[in-house]
Amino acid sequence: MHQLTKRNEDYSKWYNDIIIKSELAEFSGVRGFMIIKPYGFSIWEIMKKKLDKMFKESGHKNVYFPLLIPKSFFSKEKKHIDDFSKGCAIVTHYKFKKNKNQEKLTIDSKSKLKEELVIRPTSESIVWKTYRRWIQSYRDLPILFNQWGNAIRWEMHTRLFLRTSEFLWQEGHTAHSTKNEAIEETKKILNIYTKFSENIMAIPVLKGIKPYMDKFSGSETTYCIEALMQDGKSLQIGTSHFLGQNFSKVFDVKFTNKNGGKEYVWSTSWGVSTRLIGGLAMLHSDDHGLILPPKIAPIQTVIIPIYKNQKELVKINEIVEKIKKILKNKGISIKYDNRELFTPGWKFHEYEMKGIPIRISIGKNEIKMEKVEVFRRDTYEKSHISWNMIITLIPELLEKIQKNIYKKALNRTKKLTIISDHYEDFKKKIKDKGGFIFAHWDGTMSTAKKIQKETEATIRCIPIPNEKKIGKCIYSGSPSTQRVVFAKSY
Amino acid sequence: MHQLTKRNEDYSKWYNDIIIKSELAEFSGVRGFMIIKPYGFSIWEIMKKKLDKMFKESGHKNVYFPLLIPKSFFSKEKKHIDDFSKGCAIVTHYKFKKNKNQEKLTIDSKSKLKEELVIRPTSESIVWKTYRRWIQSYRDLPILFNQWGNAIRWEMHTRLFLRTSEFLWQEGHTAHSTKNEAIEETKKILNIYTKFSENIMAIPVLKGIKPYMDKFSGSETTYCIEALMQDGKSLQIGTSHFLGQNFSKVFDVKFTNKNGGKEYVWSTSWGVSTRLIGGLAMLHSDDHGLILPPKIAPIQTVIIPIYKNQKELVKINEIVEKIKKILKNKGISIKYDNRELFTPGWKFHEYEMKGIPIRISIGKNEIKMEKVEVFRRDTYEKSHISWNMIITLIPELLEKIQKNIYKKALNRTKKLTIISDHYEDFKKKIKDKGGFIFAHWDGTMSTAKKIQKETEATIRCIPIPNEKKIGKCIYSGSPSTQRVVFAKSY
Repeated sequence: MHQLTKRNEDYSKWYNDIIIKSELAEFSGVRGFMIIKPYGFSIWEIMKKKLDKMFKESGHKNVYFPLLIPKSFFSKEKKHIDDFSKGCAIVTHYKFKKNKNQEKLTIDSKSKLKEELVIRPTSESIVWKTYRRWIQSYRDLPILFNQWGNAIRWEMHTRLFLRTSEFLWQEGHTAHSTKNEAIEETKKILNIYTKFSENIMAIPVLKGIKPYMDKFSGSETTYCIEALMQDGKSLQIGTSHFLGQNFSKVFDVKFTNKNGGKEYVWSTSWGVSTRLIGGLAMLHSDDHGLILPPKIAPIQTVIIPIYKNQKELVKINEIVEKIKKILKNKGISIKYDNRELFTPGWKFHEYEMKGIPIRISIGKNEIKMEKVEVFRRDTYEKSHISWNMIITLIPELLEKIQKNIYKKALNRTKKLTIISDHYEDFKKKIKDKGGFIFAHWDGTMSTAKKIQKETEATIRCIPIPNEKKIGKCIYSGSPSTQRVVFAKSY
Repeated sequence: MHQLTKRNEDYSKWYNDIIIKSELAEFSGVRGFMIIKPYGFSIWEIMKKKLDKMFKESGHKNVYFPLLIPKSFFSKEKKHIDDFSKGCAIVTHYKFKKNKNQEKLTIDSKSKLKEELVIRPTSESIVWKTYRRWIQSYRDLPILFNQWGNAIRWEMHTRLFLRTSEFLWQEGHTAHSTKNEAIEETKKILNIYTKFSENIMAIPVLKGIKPYMDKFSGSETTYCIEALMQDGKSLQIGTSHFLGQNFSKVFDVKFTNKNGGKEYVWSTSWGVSTRLIGGLAMLHSDDHGLILPPKIAPIQTVIIPIYKNQKELVKINEIVEKIKKILKNKGISIKYDNRELFTPGWKFHEYEMKGIPIRISIGKNEIKMEKVEVFRRDTYEKSHISWNMIITLIPELLEKIQKNIYKKALNRTKKLTIISDHYEDFKKKIKDKGGFIFAHWDGTMSTAKKIQKETEATIRCIPIPNEKKIGKCIYSGSPSTQRVVFAKSY
């Protein structure tokens, strides 16, 4: 029926199969652009809802800025230019005309824009152009705004969720009166991302600071969280930038402080995207399909009837109605699939593929015993529980599954988090199993580039917290003050 | 402080003032594109949440299609072309290059796309291109999908929320195996829109069918809801289209029916946008600012302390904490504004401008009496209520306000809903007060155009329900089978 490539055959193909066959997303007819299908989108809705709550509880408000940004806004920020001259969608005209005698549309050259508009790759430029109007005094600060929306960065090599030309995301843009407050904000958001990843998505993360050559242009310090996939490669899943006064200087945004003096505003920006869905799927799933932690699963429990005739089904429906009510009252999301077009076997397979954490099935035998059969997607364990125990055991089991999925990921990450002091050993480890390798680095870009060329590993981050400890660069032997984390990455 | 233009001086300017001064939105530096500010966006979030719940309860699922659509997809649907050749954002390149010796960005001509991409003005084309892959059998039907997102239609004359080049909206796209089921879907959605408008937004609506010359191209029947503004002009606030088999024929989407035969799929599409926010603001507000029905108000009750010294404030804070707790438990959204930078008078004015339904104030006298002062934004009435009555009286008052705002709008709409049988009378009525005018029409486009030219009134819809009753066209005297509704419109 559904056949998945095995992980040890082709991890990359397995990932693609998972996304397609669990119906999370697929590529559209437009190169590099995906369609997020209802099941995938419902995961995004849960992510949005939970993150949005955390943002709001920490004082942030949502706002909406224009999709299109005039070219000149980008030209203002020199470093910014380099980043986004790589690839973006450029709007040059606003009208088609119909050719006479044929139905083809061609661009109406009269509709050429005086200035090209760029579909936002990120919104710092238009945000700061606007903040200039909004900020006069210290009374107007801080501004703690966030935007949920879409963005486009032209990509040549795309993978569903992990790298697509259009992605959905949130981008926070905050303005502060002091450097310290802005740094605190950057860290606060990194902690929100970490909590969300670990507690909700069951994804253990490594927190750190990007080395200077990899940070977002226009940023002073880029904090990130990285997660280790099953193949030992790292995925960056969130970034939080301390932007210093870079954007306020470029867009000339000053405020009057309490003493009447003028100062440039301090700022941050931060974001996570639909890439999270890719990480979630890639990190936990197995050769049978998706595995979802209960806290992010759109359906936490599926119930499937097993029956030979209508009389049996009627009886089962009756009991299931009661079970549904009990579990819904406990806040558990449930689907009862009694469609007659599909066999129980087909349904079992289908919901395993979709990673529903718990499957309850009920047939003639279960009715006789006043029990249901309970199946755990994460461990493939089956057991029978009595009807009157459902109200306590199912919520408990969901918590157990959440913890188990996290623990499994954490153990794997720990096993793949290693120290290396010799380059030959380092190369072997990267090649064999990958993982996070803590090693000394001399701090130069040239060393980082050579290591990348020889091993494909890059410096993922300078970890936080990190012990300052003198050592020698694993490559050059030059002095180093602390270890950084190397890994191959997505 | 805040000064608003009066409605009877310049209704249009008053509307703009309301939007700006209550901080719902403002125009950005990009022509025709607005920034939705946090207060405006929080209203949109409430709209989204409530509509989304209604869509989901009626079996719809959310999905996400690409922002960019290849030109050739549009060329397929001849009628569609006419609509969107009017103005859209066309992406032609994907890269800039930096000029040597200067910082200006120019388009890299090598990055020219083989085929232009259009930012979605609406998504039927890419949706039906995709449904072709997804629909084979009657088992795949119905498809009941909805998308929340942005869209662009190039507009020359823009007004905040009412007409902007970019807007946020939801677009539903459904596929059915029978004509009847698709028509039922179209009507079901119209009823959801109506319920939402009347029960949540307190906006009475006229339901009807667009005359053939005004329907969405590619649609068989366009259902709409129209609301009458205070100046007697109508605003179309939602449409639901029965698309027949138009899109399935253009994109060749057939399904195998239960008997093994092949049939074209039937379809609908429907949408409401951020225009709703404009209608909401324009319909209810007064010369002092915004008036919001409690069910759509981001803050339902604001509490303001009145104090002379810190000792008094501490005492007030203590009592307010208790009141907040009581009201929050009742599900009421509350803001306590005890900022010291602003005076009570400034705050009173501010929250009147922002349309907060209830203002509670508490000072020394109120503490002595164990009461609070309660102010209704809709009627400007003030009263004192005892602390122990807050738990019952505030929720009751919110309901009263909701009903009163609706009743007021309904009475005005009724007063402005009139019948006319003589063209001179019709012209006078349209000119004097506007309103919905029920009149006979001969069914020809030429008559409709002449009436529009002479009076600015257009046929808003053929109302539902509508009595079939023979009459004579108000303009031409030719026979007519039913009355239609004329009005000036936004």
